[in-house]
Amino acid sequence: MTAPDAPADPAASTPAQARAAFRAGLRTPTAGWAAGWTQANLIALPRDFAYDFLLFAQRNPAPCPVLDVTEPGETSASIFAGDLRTDLPAYRIYRDGVPVAEVADATEHWRPDLVAFLIGCSFTFEAALLEAGVPVRHLETGGNVPMYRTDQACRPAGRLSGPLVVSMRPVPAGLVAAAVRVTSRYPSVHGAPVHVGDPAALGIADLAAPDFGDPVELREGEVPVFWACGVTPQAAVMRSRPPFAIGHAPGHMAVTDARDSAYLVP
Amino acid sequence: MTAPDAPADPAASTPAQARAAFRAGLRTPTAGWAAGWTQANLIALPRDFAYDFLLFAQRNPAPCPVLDVTEPGETSASIFAGDLRTDLPAYRIYRDGVPVAEVADATEHWRPDLVAFLIGCSFTFEAALLEAGVPVRHLETGGNVPMYRTDQACRPAGRLSGPLVVSMRPVPAGLVAAAVRVTSRYPSVHGAPVHVGDPAALGIADLAAPDFGDPVELREGEVPVFWACGVTPQAAVMRSRPPFAIGHAPGHMAVTDARDSAYLVP
Repeated sequence: MTAPDAPADPAASTPAQARAAFRAGLRTPTAGWAAGWTQANLIALPRDFAYDFLLFAQRNPAPCPVLDVTEPGETSASIFAGDLRTDLPAYRIYRDGVPVAEVADATEHWRPDLVAFLIGCSFTFEAALLEAGVPVRHLETGGNVPMYRTDQACRPAGRLSGPLVVSMRPVPAGLVAAAVRVTSRYPSVHGAPVHVGDPAALGIADLAAPDFGDPVELREGEVPVFWACGVTPQAAVMRSRPPFAIGHAPGHMAVTDARDSAYLVP
Repeated sequence: MTAPDAPADPAASTPAQARAAFRAGLRTPTAGWAAGWTQANLIALPRDFAYDFLLFAQRNPAPCPVLDVTEPGETSASIFAGDLRTDLPAYRIYRDGVPVAEVADATEHWRPDLVAFLIGCSFTFEAALLEAGVPVRHLETGGNVPMYRTDQACRPAGRLSGPLVVSMRPVPAGLVAAAVRVTSRYPSVHGAPVHVGDPAALGIADLAAPDFGDPVELREGEVPVFWACGVTPQAAVMRSRPPFAIGHAPGHMAVTDARDSAYLVP
C-alpha cells in the first residue's frame, strides 16, 4: 500500500477525512490539520494502571487534562468516532517503559485490557493565537512543535511519576501578554503558559535539541514561551515502567469530533 | 460536651478556626463561613470504588469537579490540613446506599481502605456574586442553600450512576446575565448555571420542597437559577449502593486551605 499524499489544504479536512487519511497510511504531524476541531494526546494503559493514571492526571491537570476515557478494550471514544488503533498518524509502543516500536497501525499491539485516555493538546489554542496576531513558528515552517523534558517533577500518583514535558513557541516580547491572555481561556487544553523565558530554569540545556518534535528558530526580540504538554504521560511511562503502554507519536495526534470552542471559557 | 456557639462573625474565621469549631461540636451549614477560602464536598468510598468514582467525576465535571484525592486511609489532604473525620460540621454515613446515620464525628465509622474525594462547591463563587451585586438569598436568611435531585442522568462510570443534583439561587431577571458571567469564571467549582428558569424542565415539582437544604423565597421578578451541585456523588451512592460511603451532610462542607482565587480563570 502506498501512503497517500497530504491533502492540498489539511486545515480544511473534517475529522473523519483526517482520520481516513491517517488510517490509509499518511504519517505526518497534525499541527494545523482540521481547523476548529480538537486534537488530543493518546495514552493507553492496562486496566490495572487506570486508577493510578487518572489520579496522576487529577494531580497534574496542566499537562494532563483528561478529555475522554474509554472502557477497557474499547477502540473508540465519545469524542472520537474513529478507530483508536489505526486513525492516528503514528503510535509509540512501550514495553516496561521502553519505546520498542513506532508504527502507523497499532492494531496488532492493542490488547483487550487497555484503557485509552485522550488528553488535551495545545494545538487547540493555536488558531486563537493566530487570530490574536501571535505567530506560531512551527505552523509557518510546517514542522512539528518542539517539546522538552523539564527538571520539574509532576506530583506522583500510585506507581506513576515523571517529569513535566513542555511545548515551546517563540513569541515576540510585545505579544507575550496576548499569548498568556488567549491561552488562559483554554484551561482544559493546557491553558496559560507554565513558564515564560529562561529555558535553563526548567532544566532545558539547549532549545535547538528538543526531546520530541522539531527545533524552531528563536528570532531576535522573541521570548521562548512554554506550555505544559500532553506528552507528559509518556514521560511518566518511561520513568515508571508499567509493563505495557501505547501512546501517540509526539505531535501526531488524535483528531477528535469535539470542537475547539467546547474548551473555551468563559 | 456542650457544642460551642458560632463565632460572632463566621465569615472572618480562618479555615483552622472554622475546623476547630466544628471539631468541638458546632453543627451548622457553612455558607458564608471563612470568606475567601474554598469549601468542598466530601465523598469517601472504599478503594475498590475509587476508579469508578474518579471516572464518574471525569465524565460529569460540572457536578463533580475533583479538587483533591487522598491516599487510602489518609485523614487529611493536600488542600485540607485538618482531620477529615472530625473537622466538618456533620457527616452522613451510608451502608449499601442507605443513609444510616448523620453524625458530627465520623471517626468511629472511618475505615483504612477509604479514599476521600474533595469536590468543588458553589459556595466558592458566592462572594463574587455579592460583589457583582447579585443577591444570595440563603446568605441573607442564614439558612442552607436549597438543593434538588433532577431527572437528568449523569453519565455512568463502572458501577456508579445517578441523577444530577442542583443548587438553586433566586436571581432578579436583570441580573441573570451577571450571575452567568461571574460564575463562568469558576469552572472547577461548578462554573456557569446548568439551567435558568423552569424547574419543571429539570423534573423539579416543587421549589418549596428541596431534597436537601432549606427552601428559600422566590420573589416577584426573580428567576430560579440552577447550578450543578457536589451532592451529586451522594445521590449516585444512594442509586448505586456501594457497600459503604461517608459524605458531608449537605451544606455542611469541608473548609479547606485553598483560596477561592485559586479556582478563578482566566
